[in-house]
Amino acid sequence: MNKWIFDAAKSIDVTATKLAQAHQAILTKPPGSLGRLEILAEKFAGWQSKQHPILEQLHIGVFAADHGICKQNVSAFPQEVTVQMIANFLEGGAAISVLSQQIGASLTVCNLGTVAALPEKYEGHPQLIEANIAKESADFSMQEAMTDEQLQKALMAGRELVAEKVIDLQECSIPPTPSLHLFIGGEMGIGNTSSASAIYAAQLGLAAEEVVGPGTGIDQIGLLRKQSVINAALKLHVDYLADPYQTLRCVGGFEIAALVGSYIYCAQIGVPVLVDGFICTAAALIAVKLNASVGDWLLFSHRSAEPAHHLALEALSANVLLDLELRLGEGSGAALAVPLLQSALALHNNMATFEQAGVSAG
Amino acid sequence: MNKWIFDAAKSIDVTATKLAQAHQAILTKPPGSLGRLEILAEKFAGWQSKQHPILEQLHIGVFAADHGICKQNVSAFPQEVTVQMIANFLEGGAAISVLSQQIGASLTVCNLGTVAALPEKYEGHPQLIEANIAKESADFSMQEAMTDEQLQKALMAGRELVAEKVIDLQECSIPPTPSLHLFIGGEMGIGNTSSASAIYAAQLGLAAEEVVGPGTGIDQIGLLRKQSVINAALKLHVDYLADPYQTLRCVGGFEIAALVGSYIYCAQIGVPVLVDGFICTAAALIAVKLNASVGDWLLFSHRSAEPAHHLALEALSANVLLDLELRLGEGSGAALAVPLLQSALALHNNMATFEQAGVSAG
Repeated sequence: MNKWIFDAAKSIDVTATKLAQAHQAILTKPPGSLGRLEILAEKFAGWQSKQHPILEQLHIGVFAADHGICKQNVSAFPQEVTVQMIANFLEGGAAISVLSQQIGASLTVCNLGTVAALPEKYEGHPQLIEANIAKESADFSMQEAMTDEQLQKALMAGRELVAEKVIDLQECSIPPTPSLHLFIGGEMGIGNTSSASAIYAAQLGLAAEEVVGPGTGIDQIGLLRKQSVINAALKLHVDYLADPYQTLRCVGGFEIAALVGSYIYCAQIGVPVLVDGFICTAAALIAVKLNASVGDWLLFSHRSAEPAHHLALEALSANVLLDLELRLGEGSGAALAVPLLQSALALHNNMATFEQAGVSAG
Repeated sequence: MNKWIFDAAKSIDVTATKLAQAHQAILTKPPGSLGRLEILAEKFAGWQSKQHPILEQLHIGVFAADHGICKQNVSAFPQEVTVQMIANFLEGGAAISVLSQQIGASLTVCNLGTVAALPEKYEGHPQLIEANIAKESADFSMQEAMTDEQLQKALMAGRELVAEKVIDLQECSIPPTPSLHLFIGGEMGIGNTSSASAIYAAQLGLAAEEVVGPGTGIDQIGLLRKQSVINAALKLHVDYLADPYQTLRCVGGFEIAALVGSYIYCAQIGVPVLVDGFICTAAALIAVKLNASVGDWLLFSHRSAEPAHHLALEALSANVLLDLELRLGEGSGAALAVPLLQSALALHNNMATFEQAGVSAG
């Protein structure tokens, strides 16, 4: 049933990448002087099979879920905040709501299960997808976070959110666009830095002390408690943690699994992904460990203030675009990096060549 | 005649900064989780004396001039490129032209003197300011780059460009705006990394070997030649180089001096400046050494690929926003960072508070 996650990603059009490289070389600037922006334009060319790629259709899917690990008192915020923030996303008051407006991205929120109920007035909200799996994942310091069936549902929820947006865009746009130009996954789930930390520890072979940070802002005593909870979990599930799929099932969360499913499916249908911070990078790590071909379709947006983030970025050979001490989640760091991608493509497509401008090449 | 450069910068409204800080604390996010974006919003509050600052009126002034040091064969590009690029700025084909469109900034080009003549068709172009001082600065490895009178003219040209744009905006906007919300200085001048390198060496007490980089792309032999030219210049002008004003006069360029004048005047009238890369940071360094109060009005946009840039950034305690291996100049790195400032203010002004959204605080 979950075999789809192992299907290969779409291949990159290397010819288009090379054509874009050749175009960069004749633009009115010293060769290479736009640094990493040149490489971004070339990547989009390879993704879109076009010498002159565009970035117009962007979608942000925020996955939300609650975490049983909160029973261990690992978060600075009460668990009801997950559902309160879903409402805030839909009302337009959250950081990711403000940023989605600014970058011209559409936004949907996928609710995979919360302890508190979402107020009835949001039923049928056009930006809300209800994909309830359970009220929360199980406390992974005591048992496996989810059953195999729950994990498969969560992976599929990620895939379906992407599939739905791609179809929507195909139907709505004139002329029809083949797909999204960029997908951003976001997340909301009180307690999910604990889950992500456990994934980092399991998949990078690190101790809890190396991967646990303050999350949304727990104090020093809370940090030690969080470390000991993660350590206990790593011991409990030790027989499973060599395997990325079982790691996700044992210590992951519904929203992290949905991110994994969305990333893998994007790569399979040829939609590049801009990965957000600490939590999303845990999902990217699992996605790439499950299916290495997915890595070709991932861009990493920023280095989070969460101390262990850089360890996973290094393991993924990820070169981030921003380093602004962000630690908010929701997809906000990725949304902030989008104007850099837009600038890279605007420069690539709209700058004059040496010949057009009558400028002498060096 | 040049005494205006020593007048104090406008003071920052600390009360508005504190009100903005207080507002950040009640927005629906973990405290501090927007990292450096929170600090940017607070800075704009202090600059604009408003708890909710805006960023709508942006101007980019690109200063262009030729350099006598080119006789020493220090650049990968021929000197005629300076005037060719002025035409490219006006035609909309240069990187800074494309980026100014993208961020909604107006753009003017100030021509301080070029060896080749600008084609007649650009005479009276609405984006062009003619402020011709001489065809080029003198070869600073042989003599002083400019006379005191030339330096004063260049400083004034920078001041006047800013003054003109502020008045323009006051007249055009309804209701009248008190000033620009942000100024970006850009530069174009074949040979100007040599000039900037000499400024770094003189003002930071470094050897030519530490400050000279490839600029627009000279080869290894060219790099050694550039180093020995700078070393000769540092010896020739040694009696003057403790003083920032005389350093600017002896080894600077007209466009670098105009940048210095524009930065100082912006600070005096209360317009924050977003400093671009290697060349602009040399101007910022001189501006701050001449008049320390100017530093309060400078933001630094990016770390350039030019190797010595970080030394000046450290000397200025500058915390850059981007690090993308850019080395183009023109103000391009600063323009690329503008969306981060816009995002910081959009989040500050448009996010819901905990109370508005009914979200439990941590």
